[in-house]
Amino acid sequence: MDAETTTIESSTNRQQQLARRWIDGFNAALASGDAEAVSQLFAPISFWRDLVAFTWNIKTVENREGVRDMLAATRDDARPVVFSLAEPASEANGIIEAWLTFETKVGRGEGLVRLRDGLAWTLLTALSELKGHEEPKGPRRPLGAEHGVIRGRKSWAERQADEARTIGFETQPYVLVIGGGQGGIALGARLRQLGVPSVVIDRHERAGDQWRKRYKSLCLHDPVWYDHLPYIDFPANWPVFSPKDKIGDWLEMYTKVMDINYWVSTTAKSAVYDKDHSTWRVIVDRHGETLELRPTHLVLATGMSGKPHIPAFRGIERFRGEQHHSSQHPGPDAYAGKRVVVIGSNNSAHDICAALWEHGADVTMVQRSSTHIVRSNSLMEIGLGDLYSERAVDRGVTTHRADMIFASLPYRIMHEFQRPVYDAIRERDADFYAALRKVGFMLDFGADDSGLFMKYLRRGSGYYIDVGASDLVIDASIKLKSGVPVEEITETGVRMADGVELPADLIVYATGYGSMNGWAADLISQDVADRVGKVWGLGSDTPKDPGPWEGEQRNMWKPTQQENLWFHGGNLHQSRHYSLYLALQLKARQIGLATPVYGLQEVHHLT
Amino acid sequence: MDAETTTIESSTNRQQQLARRWIDGFNAALASGDAEAVSQLFAPISFWRDLVAFTWNIKTVENREGVRDMLAATRDDARPVVFSLAEPASEANGIIEAWLTFETKVGRGEGLVRLRDGLAWTLLTALSELKGHEEPKGPRRPLGAEHGVIRGRKSWAERQADEARTIGFETQPYVLVIGGGQGGIALGARLRQLGVPSVVIDRHERAGDQWRKRYKSLCLHDPVWYDHLPYIDFPANWPVFSPKDKIGDWLEMYTKVMDINYWVSTTAKSAVYDKDHSTWRVIVDRHGETLELRPTHLVLATGMSGKPHIPAFRGIERFRGEQHHSSQHPGPDAYAGKRVVVIGSNNSAHDICAALWEHGADVTMVQRSSTHIVRSNSLMEIGLGDLYSERAVDRGVTTHRADMIFASLPYRIMHEFQRPVYDAIRERDADFYAALRKVGFMLDFGADDSGLFMKYLRRGSGYYIDVGASDLVIDASIKLKSGVPVEEITETGVRMADGVELPADLIVYATGYGSMNGWAADLISQDVADRVGKVWGLGSDTPKDPGPWEGEQRNMWKPTQQENLWFHGGNLHQSRHYSLYLALQLKARQIGLATPVYGLQEVHHLT
Repeated sequence: MDAETTTIESSTNRQQQLARRWIDGFNAALASGDAEAVSQLFAPISFWRDLVAFTWNIKTVENREGVRDMLAATRDDARPVVFSLAEPASEANGIIEAWLTFETKVGRGEGLVRLRDGLAWTLLTALSELKGHEEPKGPRRPLGAEHGVIRGRKSWAERQADEARTIGFETQPYVLVIGGGQGGIALGARLRQLGVPSVVIDRHERAGDQWRKRYKSLCLHDPVWYDHLPYIDFPANWPVFSPKDKIGDWLEMYTKVMDINYWVSTTAKSAVYDKDHSTWRVIVDRHGETLELRPTHLVLATGMSGKPHIPAFRGIERFRGEQHHSSQHPGPDAYAGKRVVVIGSNNSAHDICAALWEHGADVTMVQRSSTHIVRSNSLMEIGLGDLYSERAVDRGVTTHRADMIFASLPYRIMHEFQRPVYDAIRERDADFYAALRKVGFMLDFGADDSGLFMKYLRRGSGYYIDVGASDLVIDASIKLKSGVPVEEITETGVRMADGVELPADLIVYATGYGSMNGWAADLISQDVADRVGKVWGLGSDTPKDPGPWEGEQRNMWKPTQQENLWFHGGNLHQSRHYSLYLALQLKARQIGLATPVYGLQEVHHLT
Repeated sequence: MDAETTTIESSTNRQQQLARRWIDGFNAALASGDAEAVSQLFAPISFWRDLVAFTWNIKTVENREGVRDMLAATRDDARPVVFSLAEPASEANGIIEAWLTFETKVGRGEGLVRLRDGLAWTLLTALSELKGHEEPKGPRRPLGAEHGVIRGRKSWAERQADEARTIGFETQPYVLVIGGGQGGIALGARLRQLGVPSVVIDRHERAGDQWRKRYKSLCLHDPVWYDHLPYIDFPANWPVFSPKDKIGDWLEMYTKVMDINYWVSTTAKSAVYDKDHSTWRVIVDRHGETLELRPTHLVLATGMSGKPHIPAFRGIERFRGEQHHSSQHPGPDAYAGKRVVVIGSNNSAHDICAALWEHGADVTMVQRSSTHIVRSNSLMEIGLGDLYSERAVDRGVTTHRADMIFASLPYRIMHEFQRPVYDAIRERDADFYAALRKVGFMLDFGADDSGLFMKYLRRGSGYYIDVGASDLVIDASIKLKSGVPVEEITETGVRMADGVELPADLIVYATGYGSMNGWAADLISQDVADRVGKVWGLGSDTPKDPGPWEGEQRNMWKPTQQENLWFHGGNLHQSRHYSLYLALQLKARQIGLATPVYGLQEVHHLT
């Protein structure tokens, strides 16, 4: 096919022309450095979400003014910038959607633009790789064998053993990742591929124990298409909802075959930032031995849930039975025939109640405030199905593509897309919700009826993905005490404000977690924790997510007010996707690129 | 698009029409049951290769007569049969190539037909799955979580533990696989997916030790695209040539995450076929404990190389130094400064010589007959590149598709396709070959200049894929003694027929292996080994592969003259691809399908 034919064929339809015209204009405006001209290519109400490509930050700017300010601040470091159409544009409901690739001075990225009336309504720009520091994969994969015979050459295994023996001792990791769940592991894998010397430490005996050690009936509540780790997808025979021991084994094997320096049975005791050397001094206990590490960067991947939180119930100290926070709950095996009161009504509370009932305990759930419940099947089919499902894969929506689509929806308007989903779910499961209400269960669908994902993104709590426990609440197998505050803990149980006393051999406080900066307070100092401020949440001005509006999740995967301190975590989807942007930020610093951060996180709340 | 438009569009070109016409005729002839009519759709010189779909065998029939006889024998069991075009046909060099799918009474399969002048020149039919017994993958993948709460339900981990505890004791495996290298592991994974209770036993302490325990500089000689296991591909960052410890770790994790019942440190001591019960009685030693297993089928996956072979050199018993077969060679570490004579000049000999030289030994290679050498890069680029490479993947030739293309080339004419490849390699590497000849190295390119793959398929020996040792031979770092027979082994070394004496502290006999049925002789009986006959080879009437022509590899992955005894093995490609057909044959028997074997292996040679 000659060049002329190509041109004729590819400009046959309107959306291609419009998409190309916008890109051409965008490129021209970017080349001229005229931030005002760039902003005029955006609709009056519009969103540009940038993942590290222009802002060295995770940042959404809004409207023409936001675009103009961001461009004015970043254009000189980014240029030359060229955007291209990655595939033919598509059109639906008057919106043209076009997948993009682009190059900046230092990197390559991909993006997605949605055009309305020829102007950008949403634009996502996501850095994929740094020029000259591309990952060794596909055509760049390592040879493995060094052909030719060289006296005294070390084998792969010997080099691995050498590194494992010396890192943290004779050499220092550039990055220390504290916490080796899916977050730490995914980041560790990416850093290994990018050639950033790293160590991931975890307090458990084996990688995957973060899952293995939880209650035995636990399965992932998210489906397999949502859960892939970077580089190695789960195989086609992998269960939709992975049993906890199976996901534990997968994480363990992944850690091994991805060559992560993963230190088991290792706890971080303290960390101090040495400003003079721009490195951390971290004291860790590894198998009982104390050593000091000197990483340049410290990543807390200790779980987005933060530290366990137990409200200061009156009388809690006098209870004569066993009591613990849900995170310390050992599972149901020891509690057959025992009376258990679980305070709380979100995911953990439901899971723990169901497992206890399964094992013959007498279980009461104390619901203190309303809960958003979605049945797993409904969430799968209506909530996730277009992006993460076998059906999506069949339509060409790979997990990577789904991640990009999901990332392209600005948080500011995401609730508008989510509401109809939950309206549909409410209708579909009307009988189910009526039955729950009938036994007194207090339901909600989020502050603005926007459902599960928004609750997750805003506060990381307040919901249960139903995999069966709700039926036990409905049929009173799990007893429900709802709508009445806890008055106090007595020597023998829980006394409610209405005078009812719930006798207990065990009280489980499924009462949630603090902000992740609580980990920083414990490990580093309260001062640093306060400097960083609250972690997680969007500033949506809904319960547990106070304003002002942030536009992105606070302090996650991006620079914080504490130099060289990072927070990483979230579910498998976030661990997979955002570990890339965090890894690229760390790599850029390792190789000494200028990384001027636009819109550094401000602090409005301490926890 | 309405049906009429579809019809018009898809019949616009000639090759589609020809392909459809042939398939329609083929379907009609098959439906009529007229074997003669079917055979007339084949060219006078033609090949139908069937992998289990029609013959319950791995079988190539030739020419119209072969097709007619095969069809006459199998049609009643296979019908109804319907073939469909899987994608648009393509044409090159006057040959139309069309990918097919098909259904028989009991299964679904895929195929590839090449048409010349409207008649089939080659046809591949390969069974993919048995109806009603499809693997639980993709849309059929297991749910994992059993939603709903059920008292006393066992978790996935508990069920796995129960099975691991009881199989071989309270319950018996339907299949026992002896040998847990890549062959046994790939088969074990497929049997697990097909729900065939199986145990894979291996003598090593850990899965993957088959590779780990070899000499330390070893890397796979085949590239990564050729080496994928079923279900889980190596990731995009995996080295082209996997270092032995890395492949060992991969096999170990694979065994774990694919839930294979894999017994380490277990040796089969004896096996007897109990005709009355149609089961085997196999005595195994597991961690020092003796137990009897009663599997219905026994698979020997102990390595296609068979038992080590050492020629009866005169004087071998009086040698006062150390001597061992290459398979027992512990690696070079203990031999720095020692004089080593390696008798042999194929892969193992070269690898061992190079590693010894690397570690400072004084090494002499004794070449007794000519060797086929191909440089790894040349093999990659010219020999494998169209099917197994990043370039192939970019062109849409996935590993699965490459496997099917490779399987579609009849062994009878494969050498004709291979010769030009090796002509090109000879030209490209002319200087290299000249340098080898100059130091006296005896070269060949196979009996008919058809190169490495044909040597591999015919005899599994006689070649070296050069990853560096040849340069050491060329520059005399590895001393070469060539073209002179070994006269005898003396007390202090090796005496050659020309009177030269090669002093040695160590003699390594890299003198090859017997036929795989030697394993059967040791484990079962010489009687059974003789009944089965020689394993491997095509009957090409070339050295070490005596005629008559077999058309397929002897006794591999298909029924043998010994009921319920099977041989499995080969390189990673064969272990991956043929494990499917062996697994389907075993599954069919497990569920009691009629499996009349067409063209059961005849025995012409005992070893």
